[in-house]
Amino acid sequence: MAGSSLGKVFVVTNFGESHGPAIGAVIDGCPPGMDLSAEDIQKELERRRPGKSRHVTQRQESDQVEILSGIYQGKTTGTPIALLIRNIDQKSKDYSDISEVFRPAHADYTYFKKYGIRDPRGGGRSSARLTAPTVAAGAVAKKWLKQNYGIEIRACLTKLGPISLEVKDWNAVENNPFFCADPKKIPELETFMDCLRKEGNSVGAQLTVEALHVPAGWGEPIYGRLDAELAYALMGLNAVKAVEIGEGTAVSSLNGTDNVDEMGTQYPGLFASNHSGGVLGGISSGAPIVCKVSIKPTPSIRRELRTLNVKGENVVVSTKGRHDPCVGLRAAPILEALIAIVLMDQALRNRAQCG
Amino acid sequence: MAGSSLGKVFVVTNFGESHGPAIGAVIDGCPPGMDLSAEDIQKELERRRPGKSRHVTQRQESDQVEILSGIYQGKTTGTPIALLIRNIDQKSKDYSDISEVFRPAHADYTYFKKYGIRDPRGGGRSSARLTAPTVAAGAVAKKWLKQNYGIEIRACLTKLGPISLEVKDWNAVENNPFFCADPKKIPELETFMDCLRKEGNSVGAQLTVEALHVPAGWGEPIYGRLDAELAYALMGLNAVKAVEIGEGTAVSSLNGTDNVDEMGTQYPGLFASNHSGGVLGGISSGAPIVCKVSIKPTPSIRRELRTLNVKGENVVVSTKGRHDPCVGLRAAPILEALIAIVLMDQALRNRAQCG
Amino acid sequence: MAGSSLGKVFVVTNFGESHGPAIGAVIDGCPPGMDLSAEDIQKELERRRPGKSRHVTQRQESDQVEILSGIYQGKTTGTPIALLIRNIDQKSKDYSDISEVFRPAHADYTYFKKYGIRDPRGGGRSSARLTAPTVAAGAVAKKWLKQNYGIEIRACLTKLGPISLEVKDWNAVENNPFFCADPKKIPELETFMDCLRKEGNSVGAQLTVEALHVPAGWGEPIYGRLDAELAYALMGLNAVKAVEIGEGTAVSSLNGTDNVDEMGTQYPGLFASNHSGGVLGGISSGAPIVCKVSIKPTPSIRRELRTLNVKGENVVVSTKGRHDPCVGLRAAPILEALIAIVLMDQALRNRAQCG
Amino acid sequence: MAGSSLGKVFVVTNFGESHGPAIGAVIDGCPPGMDLSAEDIQKELERRRPGKSRHVTQRQESDQVEILSGIYQGKTTGTPIALLIRNIDQKSKDYSDISEVFRPAHADYTYFKKYGIRDPRGGGRSSARLTAPTVAAGAVAKKWLKQNYGIEIRACLTKLGPISLEVKDWNAVENNPFFCADPKKIPELETFMDCLRKEGNSVGAQLTVEALHVPAGWGEPIYGRLDAELAYALMGLNAVKAVEIGEGTAVSSLNGTDNVDEMGTQYPGLFASNHSGGVLGGISSGAPIVCKVSIKPTPSIRRELRTLNVKGENVVVSTKGRHDPCVGLRAAPILEALIAIVLMDQALRNRAQCG
Repeated sequence: MAGSSLGKVFVVTNFGESHGPAIGAVIDGCPPGMDLSAEDIQKELERRRPGKSRHVTQRQESDQVEILSGIYQGKTTGTPIALLIRNIDQKSKDYSDISEVFRPAHADYTYFKKYGIRDPRGGGRSSARLTAPTVAAGAVAKKWLKQNYGIEIRACLTKLGPISLEVKDWNAVENNPFFCADPKKIPELETFMDCLRKEGNSVGAQLTVEALHVPAGWGEPIYGRLDAELAYALMGLNAVKAVEIGEGTAVSSLNGTDNVDEMGTQYPGLFASNHSGGVLGGISSGAPIVCKVSIKPTPSIRRELRTLNVKGENVVVSTKGRHDPCVGLRAAPILEALIAIVLMDQALRNRAQCG
Repeated sequence: MAGSSLGKVFVVTNFGESHGPAIGAVIDGCPPGMDLSAEDIQKELERRRPGKSRHVTQRQESDQVEILSGIYQGKTTGTPIALLIRNIDQKSKDYSDISEVFRPAHADYTYFKKYGIRDPRGGGRSSARLTAPTVAAGAVAKKWLKQNYGIEIRACLTKLGPISLEVKDWNAVENNPFFCADPKKIPELETFMDCLRKEGNSVGAQLTVEALHVPAGWGEPIYGRLDAELAYALMGLNAVKAVEIGEGTAVSSLNGTDNVDEMGTQYPGLFASNHSGGVLGGISSGAPIVCKVSIKPTPSIRRELRTLNVKGENVVVSTKGRHDPCVGLRAAPILEALIAIVLMDQALRNRAQCG
Repeated sequence: MAGSSLGKVFVVTNFGESHGPAIGAVIDGCPPGMDLSAEDIQKELERRRPGKSRHVTQRQESDQVEILSGIYQGKTTGTPIALLIRNIDQKSKDYSDISEVFRPAHADYTYFKKYGIRDPRGGGRSSARLTAPTVAAGAVAKKWLKQNYGIEIRACLTKLGPISLEVKDWNAVENNPFFCADPKKIPELETFMDCLRKEGNSVGAQLTVEALHVPAGWGEPIYGRLDAELAYALMGLNAVKAVEIGEGTAVSSLNGTDNVDEMGTQYPGLFASNHSGGVLGGISSGAPIVCKVSIKPTPSIRRELRTLNVKGENVVVSTKGRHDPCVGLRAAPILEALIAIVLMDQALRNRAQCG
Repeated sequence: MAGSSLGKVFVVTNFGESHGPAIGAVIDGCPPGMDLSAEDIQKELERRRPGKSRHVTQRQESDQVEILSGIYQGKTTGTPIALLIRNIDQKSKDYSDISEVFRPAHADYTYFKKYGIRDPRGGGRSSARLTAPTVAAGAVAKKWLKQNYGIEIRACLTKLGPISLEVKDWNAVENNPFFCADPKKIPELETFMDCLRKEGNSVGAQLTVEALHVPAGWGEPIYGRLDAELAYALMGLNAVKAVEIGEGTAVSSLNGTDNVDEMGTQYPGLFASNHSGGVLGGISSGAPIVCKVSIKPTPSIRRELRTLNVKGENVVVSTKGRHDPCVGLRAAPILEALIAIVLMDQALRNRAQCG
């Protein structure tokens, strides 16, 4: 399979560029008979949509999804579900200058080296805008997982630059522009972001994403493991530079006595602890699946940077336009969608083999 | 595709259990005309082989590889290369006790929940022994990448429990039992491991693995990205709980000004720095690809642990036998193999699409 | 991969139903840098479009294709090419009666048994309308194969019910409504079809499709063979019940002496004959690839037929509406598209492995 | 996926060459908990084995299968099942002459053009010997399909050169060297084959293969159809040049009134006839699946034939050695295996999506 698909049995194929006519996804392999409407998908797209606070890009992407196929009388039919989102707000400006220059730490140079051609309009296919089809497809998976297994998937911000955040109150997450579960820290986050925006800089972030009530037994032993596929999906998100499961990087300092999760009927969910993050031997254990991702500061900063142009000459570039100072602030719904797609695919694969 | 294969165009399918008749791999899609002998593969298996120092498991696995197909007169023919390693040293002991108990933090419980049946002999398919076929297949990829692009792949230990190690001298790596590039620290590592072994405990580790001279342009924009596939392969290795690329988790604290890699002809390799770890927008940049993995302490410790048996009763178990107190100590050749397989697959996929 | 995709490296994913909002395809893996416009695709859709003569269905499907992605400044960028065709002419009638009855020899019963739900509007996904996205995607492959290898792909009618047709003049094919290369037979075909239409019956057909100038060396030895993939693609077209390559079914009566294709420099293209139809051992030989398909008479006939309804009761049904009395008459462009997609995928796979 | 695998969820990967150390297959995705022994597989290999009558090649291939993995205490564990067959009887002769010449109508020329290298020993990977792993893997699928759905798969010879055979008595098939279900014709077949062998010629054949009791609902609508996958598997067998389903090529002459299968509770299995061969719209209907394949006469004939050598010079070659005058005589078990693998994969895929 070419590279624009995610999943093996529940397969999401993503298409589109930031400023082309449209973006979208085709979902193949969805079980039949599930209620599904555009609203189910739209509400997840709303959570991801930019322009909702002063801390994120002020681009207005309406992101209206249209379901083109795979639904009859409000139910999935089992045939491919094609999802279409028209690109509306793209500025019809002249890209001739930027098209000759490789913005440093962006994908301009690597796309050009790969394809010999590059769509410079708004970053083309490397734009974070292309996460919208992922969110749309993930909405379908989330709904199915919830209905069939009671699975809950949720994400929140756990670090913004120097500010560490605790996971204190999941209910707070939807009520602030940071997807933050540590409500008392919100004023601090506001101040930090305002400051950052003023200086035209950007910052990294860490998010935690978890899935509750995943049955034990999903995943496969070697290569096609659940943890491997989670890492694949999460690391594949723009700007992610690290994926951790359970204790994550901390395991390198631990002894076996400190990292083992004992079992027993006396523990809720059978496990005394969850250092493993819900995956053992590549297969879900029934404990909550817990992942952390580290997202780099976007290189779109208001500063002159040295770089090359397409002729190989040294030039200087600085970013203008409506950019996110912290792309991590909008990542929560995307991480949830990615995990939902991975879990749904593994659920169906498990059903295929193990009945 | 079922889950035991790695790669799309250069495909490695892994088979076997720790104490079954044999383990092995089938490589499909290898280019024809490359010189390949069992010795090419055997030398990588030697690097992985247990029992070479007092710090690793004392099991003797001879790991003699036999090439069953795909070679004629010492050259690859383009047809599948099947690699066979007989299991020799498995103790023909009675596994009836352990087969009824789920060792905590091992894969016993999850395999049982998935399949309803479990091969308890030496951990069955969840044994680290199954990394040998990966190393064998990786040897083929490493050779091809070296011959065709001059790519060098290498890994070393950068953390052992509380001891951080620097990457000072790659030449030292093959001359000590720790794959350590910080030779002065070796006595400290020896003492630490002796101590750990005496108390029957285990410890985590961090390794760094890198690939030099990878051309710019390998990878794909969305989902099938090079960074995603690296994370997939590395996180899929037993006991790995975190994968980082370039700055890794550190990016969450950084500003854009600190994390950007400027470009210019004045810099060797065109980049002023390598925060990105050689991947931009999912595609290789030509800079060294640098990954870090964090490996958990094995749960095979000499301590009584609470757990369940197959009847769901609370029991206590403690590990006996020949185990690695730090599986990270033998991971370097495996990480190299995994990266080699991913890179080779991406190289061929890039050739398919971009000529 | 779920079932709605064709190809491994050049991958076409088809979506849509006859009377849903739209149909279309996503092409993933197309090489970058090729000139491509909607007109390139539209002209192939025109060749397939119904309603062009009295011998085919009088439905008017405008089949205007829109390219949603993957093109910048008139050239392919290497990213997915999404193709959209809106459904316009669907009659907004009441399908409640037909939705309760399984039309015999149609897919109604099998879809219902598979999915437990069925989109009855115009046949839903089982409609021949869904061949339009295949033709659209095939147009891209045809263009690339022509530009890069000079490959010509063409199909014609070689049998219509009792009337056998010879391949006398390929230039005639585009100038008659039968895709017939035997121009003198056209009056006979006209009379036959008029007669058939009057009696409300349908008829089968045979078509021949061939590809010229395919280089020797495309295909793979076992399973992923060129002949296997041609058969897969062609048998997968609605109503096809037989696929033959080269001598086809005739080989069962032949002796080896009569079926062997001798070779020599004295023969144009090196072969004295082409019994093999251009494939030997699953790999192209450089001789023309020649396939024949047999297409069944559509079961949409003006006659009462016994069948079942969704409650399992015996009922009688007869077809009304605008149907093709011979679906074979419109199959030529579709067969060409299918072969083009298979060849292009094999071309890229060959380039991946063999450079 | 590279080309040596068959199936998507139940995946068979084939490896080996005729005169290399071994041939075999790896089955990935087999459900756990099924009783499986080497004997289950061996008995199917026996049915395929050459040298059992004077009418087939006199090569003695012992074809002893060894199960290397995936079984514990006589049951499948759900992990890959690797099957190994050592090559024993290969004559260690000098292949230097034949390695320089392309035997006409064999795969010598196409392999050489593809790979630039060719294993000439016994035909290398193009040898019919490589059907043994397919038969071995098919034995697993056959057993599972029989146990879980009562599916019966069977094949017989229906044409040998000029001699047409009826399907009169399936019980006779295993009791004659021709897999013939028309016992009275056996003396005629014997005489014909003796004659053919004396003159050093070969002949084509047609076989019929069918699957009974396949549930309605297996398959997928577009591209991944059951009929397409059957055609793929069957056309991929060496020497097959045509695949027909149900009425096959005969449909091109039929009217809709003659080809429709009416339905009703009064008919056993609900269908009044089975022109469709058990597949409607790419999905099984519950009626018997019936396929026919046409197999070409092998080009290994005792006659001088014009051809080329690797230098491009015109030469003459004639075949020596132990060859099958009619490869169709040994094809029945292979066709059964191929259909079993396709059906099992579709069964599991259907279970994945439709539960």
